[in-house]
Amino acid sequence: MSATTKIALGPAPDPLLTEAVVRGGAVVAPLESADALVWAGGVEEFPRTLPEGITWVQLPAAGIEDWFDAGVVTADPGRTWTSAAGAFSATVAEHALTLLLAGVRALPAHLAARTWSQQELFHRVGTLRGTTVAIVGAGGIGRALVPMLAALGAQTIAVNRSGSPVPGAIATFPTSRLSEVWPRADHFVIAAPATTATYHLVSRDELALMKPSAWVVNVARGTLIDTEALVEALRDEKIGGAGLDVTDPEPLPDGHPLWTLPNVIVTPHDSNPPAVRPPAYAEHVTLNVARFVAGEPLAARIDPVIGY
Amino acid sequence: MSATTKIALGPAPDPLLTEAVVRGGAVVAPLESADALVWAGGVEEFPRTLPEGITWVQLPAAGIEDWFDAGVVTADPGRTWTSAAGAFSATVAEHALTLLLAGVRALPAHLAARTWSQQELFHRVGTLRGTTVAIVGAGGIGRALVPMLAALGAQTIAVNRSGSPVPGAIATFPTSRLSEVWPRADHFVIAAPATTATYHLVSRDELALMKPSAWVVNVARGTLIDTEALVEALRDEKIGGAGLDVTDPEPLPDGHPLWTLPNVIVTPHDSNPPAVRPPAYAEHVTLNVARFVAGEPLAARIDPVIGY
Repeated sequence: MSATTKIALGPAPDPLLTEAVVRGGAVVAPLESADALVWAGGVEEFPRTLPEGITWVQLPAAGIEDWFDAGVVTADPGRTWTSAAGAFSATVAEHALTLLLAGVRALPAHLAARTWSQQELFHRVGTLRGTTVAIVGAGGIGRALVPMLAALGAQTIAVNRSGSPVPGAIATFPTSRLSEVWPRADHFVIAAPATTATYHLVSRDELALMKPSAWVVNVARGTLIDTEALVEALRDEKIGGAGLDVTDPEPLPDGHPLWTLPNVIVTPHDSNPPAVRPPAYAEHVTLNVARFVAGEPLAARIDPVIGY
Repeated sequence: MSATTKIALGPAPDPLLTEAVVRGGAVVAPLESADALVWAGGVEEFPRTLPEGITWVQLPAAGIEDWFDAGVVTADPGRTWTSAAGAFSATVAEHALTLLLAGVRALPAHLAARTWSQQELFHRVGTLRGTTVAIVGAGGIGRALVPMLAALGAQTIAVNRSGSPVPGAIATFPTSRLSEVWPRADHFVIAAPATTATYHLVSRDELALMKPSAWVVNVARGTLIDTEALVEALRDEKIGGAGLDVTDPEPLPDGHPLWTLPNVIVTPHDSNPPAVRPPAYAEHVTLNVARFVAGEPLAARIDPVIGY
């Protein structure tokens, strides 16, 4: 790329992203004359056709199944698509840690108490120190979570498709050996993308293999867990509890058992709150613009065939 | 000390502590012939008089005001007293982090929800990333907390009596400059010992100086905070909220406003749960026995005059 790499911003001008583009070493230009498009809007507003000159499109979401389903992401030769995967990793990892700590330290029972129940609660408070946490789907969020767990004295087992070692994990398992992980780890953070291969990744059999004190945290997509099997395991106290930022169905309907089970924390898909997003996305854009300008491989490339 | 340093265990034999003494390079012996006493019981059972040969006493509590008030800790020349301060630092620091994260991420509101209130909650979820947390009383707990906060992208301002730099903190203030800290930090963890000098350390004036989004976490002693002033600040939403493992009075009586205010998390002094204590205390005993054997300064020495 030349020193005058031109980046279009859509759907509207944006001072934070303009600054991000300039910091990355490019200039902002109209879509017609641009080399790439950095998108900050929703899927509905996305242009149906793009000028041929656009060789790279940056989408603002980390999970891009909606964009894929809408037919926005196409397998055109000569065009690269990137998501915002990784941009919000640290904030979602913080949310996962919050749910895990709140579970292990029995905050739901504490918040329900209206009397000083020290003797009862004493025996429900645990610690992450010395435990082993499995991160199932150790992409950006998982990699951001590893050092947070390490600082608390917890070890990480990572699981990813290839089994290629995740830095800081005591072991990395390929998805094909996932069945070995359920009985081995103390707690689980589900952070894998939603694909046909990961649908109901956690169901009856997997829940049955977990330790009775295990907390399962899901910050990925609701469909990765078989909700009916989970409710059953929680009702029968087969596991310690569940911290769910995502559910299936979503939104979780009123009156659903997950709202009232005492060993559940539901957060309504708000692990990545709006106030935190624009600065994180701008940082990601700067990184990818710099790579685009330098002709280096872009971060968070989407594979238009497998869908993430 | 010679290679046959003799340590008495009380009030009863204890396999975990026997192992800890041996690992520290000493042997277990009866009180009458011992050089030191490692205590694992309560203050009531503590011997009223000790043989003169006992030159060191290890107490099992981190906060020792009860032992001090009971007259157990005396300023005898030639006898050193140590507490378990530091032994439980990491687990209490984990509790403090749990309360802080639960507050910043609005878990009380989430756990009260019985419907998918995403739009409402979205704007209440914050992050620790990029924030500055003041640790007031940066002893063992505070020092253990600093790297946990760092892993989450939060900076620490430490406050201690001398102002001597705490590793990892961006600034360390002496207690004399505490008034500068209240408006400057985003959140506060109170971890100072309970003394006459720290009584009502946080009262009306201090609360008024804090940011309206500030969470105050107390894992030290209830009397460090003026409860009446705190309740007022919480009711009027002058601060973000409070996470309290300790209260004044303690136990917190039924019907107290702290039980029902929506921006409060009360845990009944259970940050250091029983299941986690014996292994942590044994580790501390090994460390101090090794130092005693080597004639090195002991960890967590009690000053019998100032009372901690």
